[in-house]
Amino acid sequence: MIQVSFPDGNIKTFHKGITALEIAESISNQLSKKVLVAQFNDNFIDVSTSLNQDGAIKFYTWQDSKGKETFWHSSAHLMAEAIESLFPGVQFWVGPPLEQGFYYDIDFGDHKLNEAELQLIEDKINVLLQTPSQYIRKQSSKKEALEYFTAKGDVYKLDLLQKLEDGQISLYTQGNFTDLCRGPHIPNTSFIKFVKLNSIAGAYWKGDEKNKMLTRIYGISFPNKKELDDYLLLQEEIKKRDHRKIGKDLSIYTYDDDIGPGLVLWMPNGAAIIEELEKLAKDTEQAQGYKRVVTPHIAKENLYITSGHLPYYKESMFPPMVLDGTNYYLKAMNCPHHHKIFAAEPKSYKDLPYRLAEYGTCYRYEQSGELFGLMRVRCLHMNDAHIYCSKSQFASEFKLVNDLYLYYFNIFKIEKYVMRLSLHNPAKLGQKYVNEPELWKETEDMVRQVLIETQTPFVEVQDEAAFYGPKIDVQIFSAIGREFTLATNQVDFSQGRSFNLKFTNYENQPETPLIIHRAPLGTHERFIGFLLEHFAGRLPVWLTPIQIKVLPISDKYSQLAQDFLQKLLQNGIRAELDSRNEKIGKKIRDAELLKIPYMAILGEKELEQGTVSIRQHGTNDNKSCSPDDFIAELKTSINQKL
Amino acid sequence: MIQVSFPDGNIKTFHKGITALEIAESISNQLSKKVLVAQFNDNFIDVSTSLNQDGAIKFYTWQDSKGKETFWHSSAHLMAEAIESLFPGVQFWVGPPLEQGFYYDIDFGDHKLNEAELQLIEDKINVLLQTPSQYIRKQSSKKEALEYFTAKGDVYKLDLLQKLEDGQISLYTQGNFTDLCRGPHIPNTSFIKFVKLNSIAGAYWKGDEKNKMLTRIYGISFPNKKELDDYLLLQEEIKKRDHRKIGKDLSIYTYDDDIGPGLVLWMPNGAAIIEELEKLAKDTEQAQGYKRVVTPHIAKENLYITSGHLPYYKESMFPPMVLDGTNYYLKAMNCPHHHKIFAAEPKSYKDLPYRLAEYGTCYRYEQSGELFGLMRVRCLHMNDAHIYCSKSQFASEFKLVNDLYLYYFNIFKIEKYVMRLSLHNPAKLGQKYVNEPELWKETEDMVRQVLIETQTPFVEVQDEAAFYGPKIDVQIFSAIGREFTLATNQVDFSQGRSFNLKFTNYENQPETPLIIHRAPLGTHERFIGFLLEHFAGRLPVWLTPIQIKVLPISDKYSQLAQDFLQKLLQNGIRAELDSRNEKIGKKIRDAELLKIPYMAILGEKELEQGTVSIRQHGTNDNKSCSPDDFIAELKTSINQKL
Repeated sequence: MIQVSFPDGNIKTFHKGITALEIAESISNQLSKKVLVAQFNDNFIDVSTSLNQDGAIKFYTWQDSKGKETFWHSSAHLMAEAIESLFPGVQFWVGPPLEQGFYYDIDFGDHKLNEAELQLIEDKINVLLQTPSQYIRKQSSKKEALEYFTAKGDVYKLDLLQKLEDGQISLYTQGNFTDLCRGPHIPNTSFIKFVKLNSIAGAYWKGDEKNKMLTRIYGISFPNKKELDDYLLLQEEIKKRDHRKIGKDLSIYTYDDDIGPGLVLWMPNGAAIIEELEKLAKDTEQAQGYKRVVTPHIAKENLYITSGHLPYYKESMFPPMVLDGTNYYLKAMNCPHHHKIFAAEPKSYKDLPYRLAEYGTCYRYEQSGELFGLMRVRCLHMNDAHIYCSKSQFASEFKLVNDLYLYYFNIFKIEKYVMRLSLHNPAKLGQKYVNEPELWKETEDMVRQVLIETQTPFVEVQDEAAFYGPKIDVQIFSAIGREFTLATNQVDFSQGRSFNLKFTNYENQPETPLIIHRAPLGTHERFIGFLLEHFAGRLPVWLTPIQIKVLPISDKYSQLAQDFLQKLLQNGIRAELDSRNEKIGKKIRDAELLKIPYMAILGEKELEQGTVSIRQHGTNDNKSCSPDDFIAELKTSINQKL
Repeated sequence: MIQVSFPDGNIKTFHKGITALEIAESISNQLSKKVLVAQFNDNFIDVSTSLNQDGAIKFYTWQDSKGKETFWHSSAHLMAEAIESLFPGVQFWVGPPLEQGFYYDIDFGDHKLNEAELQLIEDKINVLLQTPSQYIRKQSSKKEALEYFTAKGDVYKLDLLQKLEDGQISLYTQGNFTDLCRGPHIPNTSFIKFVKLNSIAGAYWKGDEKNKMLTRIYGISFPNKKELDDYLLLQEEIKKRDHRKIGKDLSIYTYDDDIGPGLVLWMPNGAAIIEELEKLAKDTEQAQGYKRVVTPHIAKENLYITSGHLPYYKESMFPPMVLDGTNYYLKAMNCPHHHKIFAAEPKSYKDLPYRLAEYGTCYRYEQSGELFGLMRVRCLHMNDAHIYCSKSQFASEFKLVNDLYLYYFNIFKIEKYVMRLSLHNPAKLGQKYVNEPELWKETEDMVRQVLIETQTPFVEVQDEAAFYGPKIDVQIFSAIGREFTLATNQVDFSQGRSFNLKFTNYENQPETPLIIHRAPLGTHERFIGFLLEHFAGRLPVWLTPIQIKVLPISDKYSQLAQDFLQKLLQNGIRAELDSRNEKIGKKIRDAELLKIPYMAILGEKELEQGTVSIRQHGTNDNKSCSPDDFIAELKTSINQKL
């Protein structure tokens, strides 16, 4: 007999050899129909696996991310089966699950897959699904596996096999398709009710552009129609809210081949948003006692050796420039520069907490294949600051930073967020993390304690800390529920020592400050990208590049329009005049397309009555009012950041 | 007989062989006693030179810069005579005049000259001056000259002689000293009444650090005591106003070896000035219809090939970084980036003038020996903008920019300035200047015309244009009369074509815009350096980093002080609290040293009466007033930029 414990603490006794699925059945019939995959002690297993020893069991269904992951992985195998039956002789590389869906990289030989064929594959999958088949695991010797894939002629699987040791190798078969796979898989294909193949892309074998380009097919699958429909609806919405499309439509930013990939050119409309964000940050930070600094974008190699960036972060930095025989690097972070300003003059405990803020522009090397709109760029304008404080000041400073997040979330109507406390991995001390086991423990405990005491909701993640200390990543969710990593808040026990930073403490002794790295608004690039999606381009009026467009009905009213425009500008309102020789309907439509919050329409009635007709974006009403009243009202909205 | 014309248009006849000095005597005895050097046609000549042909003559005295230049050049020879008599066997390199004074580079062998010896040299000069001697020119054959300096053993003069052709060589002798020199010189040493040797420095031979380091001695000389005294007084004042000293005393900026020479770290006090300057510029530019943009600090090589920077400006650029096989450069100017934004969307005549502004940070390579405080740096924050306009808009746009200068001059209390119109040199077309002779002529005429029509005072300078068109450098003078090159205003007919920039004109045809490059506030670095000298560190209250310091008389009043501080901060006033446990006298003295405009002293009287005692920088009066009245008054001063 074996003893099996459950997540709720219960322990039950079963006969040896019982399968996970049978245990699920013993709990409830309901569960056994839904369970997709199980965990036994530290291993994820097929539910058909027989258990022969004591252990802890956990079941996963579609409701769990592990369940979805397995579901999509099994769907990738299913897609491969369909492809192999339609295109005999193709070779398969890997087919992993994604956060949403799955893909498979396939070598179609000389054939270039087209959209019509993608539909054929989807149709074939649906045919296969009419006859459910089991996912059958088979432990295989290396020799046997090598023979199988040699016979099949799949060089990619043979390449994978090279790295596997005998005894570790398993094959999975469903229907007519067998794949080299460590599993686990869902019990059978009957769970998969709806499949949607999304797109065809190219992907270099092993991500190396010197290798052959394989065909990558992306897909997703669901256990019911409603989830498929929700998914398709969301995709539609995501497409509409794509910050790259909105960014172009609203002339927010552009790229240029002669400048370089990932190097954003912020056009006037983008710069207007930047100005507002920086004003908000500067005002907020000034009120909280931050001091602003301005530092160069480059420094000598030696600075980044001291800071640890070159040993720990080099692959994310731009290559050096050689000047007067010295290597200079573009800064990837502002911190070492701020440390030098802290160190430039002696400090005492009376100067602490010493908070240095800068909208510093950093440069990071991202592989060109990873660049994506404003989300993955090479030039980052960061809402950066560094707080130098004593240990006793740490908790209250850390709380102030947390409060700052909440203050900003409220302004930007961000309703859902989660804090991820990223911890180090003791196995990677001295490689990915500075080798200070004690200090890691101490600061991680300190941060955790503050989060608990301030009742901040958080999750812990292993092996994602900064190299100099634990960090908190702030994940926010857009209006359509998509998750973004916005901001970061890091504790640093290491750089203060590396830079020999000191303050004279209350006992008149030199002491090294703790450093908090924080960037609540993240980078302009990512945050504006988020805002464009979050508001579907309809930014709040205080933030929007053009707050009102003045539309004269004809040339006869251009002086009236010009006068009103000047009045708006004098009141600090970002206004533009549409002086084109176009019908008013066309002018309104164009202003609507540009998502401009207000239109001021000026014609005969307005000339006679001394009024303006105001039309709000997305409405059909023109409201007549006095110019001064309207301006006063608009200014109130702007000042209140509505 | 020869005919000689004078600057006033008069023509007189003289016998052949008459000297320039005799002609001066024929005009007035007064002039003949003052004349230091003459110009005959295109040549500058000793006044003892005999004239044998018709020509135009011009005389220069101490009042002219050419007169001063010759005076100082002759003084350098005099100093060399004194040195040679004290240190026989030393070897001489060159001894040119400077804008103020002169220097001579000398090889003292193994001897290291000290300050006491500098005084000895000055004393020796004064002894020599007791017996005036003529500066006698002697035309020499190359052979004769080589023999002379070989015999003397002066390898440096022999090096100079290598490059001279026979027939071009002249020697000058005064007293016991003979130098290889093309002249001209003043008639004799009796003009030199006062000499001051200022300093000893090291200078590599030919400026190359691989060569031997020579000893450079700086000096200056005057024809009367008053000018010497004025000079010494000014030097004292310049020293007190040295922006490097003030910059350090007031914690404005710092440098750090690990970051690199010429790369300014702006400390909180410096950043506060920057914020105010940028706010002023942004507000002013917004009111004038500029649009702001934000562009990366780097771009691919190709951009700067198109712009002409790499062919024409490469030695001033930082070296490249090699990324993904492409050379990337730090931008030395913002213009090419702005052109790309102009080009990103189609433009029509209705969009022009299109004015793009950015406080762009540029990087320029200056030799490390040329770096100087904030005046010569490698990182420049530039008050940059580019105006794209049609030819017909050019005059009014150019005038607007001129007006902008005057507006800023008024704000910063700059009373003396001069505009230098820098033109191209036709001989350097295709090398230093883009090879478009017609366009050069056209735009130079256009700029000159605007300057004349707008009655702007200007001087013309040859061979100092930008490579893409004529430019106007704005020279301003600080309160103590020192000249600074502040700003630049350039017309560009070239880059619009290189970048294929187009707008659709009124006739619906594509047309290339003219581009005005302008930076009225120059760079933060140079302008703040200027302001520190101009105001001797006592910046106007709106611009000063800390506007008021709150000084509680003792700990008993710290709450009162804290409350007042908060009130000041809430009113957007940059205030700091001196909470040190120091006597009030010490607190006042320290605030005075930091040149903080206002001190608020809080003690028993203020606590009882609910007032504050306000003391202004540099006064001894404490004025008692209500906190609210004072704040209102201060805010008015700040808003009016007083």
